[in-house]
Amino acid sequence: MENKYSNIILYSYWRSSCSYRVRIALNLKNIKYDIKPINLLKSEQTSDEYIEKNPLRRIPCLELELKNINGKTERVFIKESISICEFLEEIYPETNLLPHDPIAKAQVRSIMSHIASNIHPIQNLMVMKRIEEIGYSKLEWAKEWITKGLEDLEKILIETKGKYCFNDTITLADAFLIPQLYNARRFDVDLEKFPIISEIEANLKDVEAFRLAAPENQLDKV
Amino acid sequence: MENKYSNIILYSYWRSSCSYRVRIALNLKNIKYDIKPINLLKSEQTSDEYIEKNPLRRIPCLELELKNINGKTERVFIKESISICEFLEEIYPETNLLPHDPIAKAQVRSIMSHIASNIHPIQNLMVMKRIEEIGYSKLEWAKEWITKGLEDLEKILIETKGKYCFNDTITLADAFLIPQLYNARRFDVDLEKFPIISEIEANLKDVEAFRLAAPENQLDKV
Repeated sequence: MENKYSNIILYSYWRSSCSYRVRIALNLKNIKYDIKPINLLKSEQTSDEYIEKNPLRRIPCLELELKNINGKTERVFIKESISICEFLEEIYPETNLLPHDPIAKAQVRSIMSHIASNIHPIQNLMVMKRIEEIGYSKLEWAKEWITKGLEDLEKILIETKGKYCFNDTITLADAFLIPQLYNARRFDVDLEKFPIISEIEANLKDVEAFRLAAPENQLDKV
Repeated sequence: MENKYSNIILYSYWRSSCSYRVRIALNLKNIKYDIKPINLLKSEQTSDEYIEKNPLRRIPCLELELKNINGKTERVFIKESISICEFLEEIYPETNLLPHDPIAKAQVRSIMSHIASNIHPIQNLMVMKRIEEIGYSKLEWAKEWITKGLEDLEKILIETKGKYCFNDTITLADAFLIPQLYNARRFDVDLEKFPIISEIEANLKDVEAFRLAAPENQLDKV
């Protein structure tokens, strides 16, 4: 399988929590990749060159070279962190980041989805900008929604947690949780209210794949 | 496989677009299920009885009976529309709603994710309520974000569309698109600006699985 896909490039921004998720997944799977930084503060995601790769004008985006049946190569672009992570899970099954059992897998995906649909989008940069324009504090807004979302997450983790979000094996749920906690701190959320989440975070602190993916360890950090 | 899971119940609200996605997927797969309505306007999702099933206090939630190896049965609850649809895809593979090829599958999932993470959460009921509280028009807010999201969606559909979102086979991308268009109309989005989306919608109009899942055909419609 591995020879079919090569020259993997991740379009990423050091502080983007969706890019951070994918960096963790790539690292956990020991996949070689290069990072091409896209500076959101300079709106580089809206450049003609980037839009050609991802018309959604968002990061992350994964570019890879695909060798087809005739031996010809083509470049493909995969958009959106969930679909990138699911794709990686499928083509690099050596290190599983989703459980095999369908119910267990659904539980992990529910956590991913809660973070990716219920928490993060509401505090994303574009929404915060608009909130400021309509006259409310963008920081207060982000803090409110992350707090609410983590309160709910803490409750579903009661059923699933072990050392990590799902039992004692690292899954994509952990790869989604840690970047959300980075945002939580940025926007001054009191994480002490969440003992389960805090314990999982502590257990993941020294895992190299997470450490290397962290915003402070990115080359485009300013 | 099918005998392992039985007595499927969907907790649903007629106007909830996330419930609508799952109703479409269940119908497309010809899965027998019962609907238990959860009235969001009466905050039934926050009742003690429902929270026990889904601590996220959200719909949809899929309940099913699982027969384990010892012949014992247990009730399980699957939360969040994406993980429910992925679960159904896995346990009822007779009608595929995701393509087999990994790149194609990733393209379909990107569309699902764009709708489920970039469009819908920002116009969801809870967010709109809060927008109204902070003094902005909730209808204007919803209209703005859906319009922006559909503009981007129209661009990625250029690459993937056939009769439907992905070529000429109905996929989960279609099951996510149609409910979002229902919301678009509710909030007065001008859909004529989106010729590709409009054509796909027209092609899905008479498909029974979509028609039966529509809000106006739900028993809890008021």
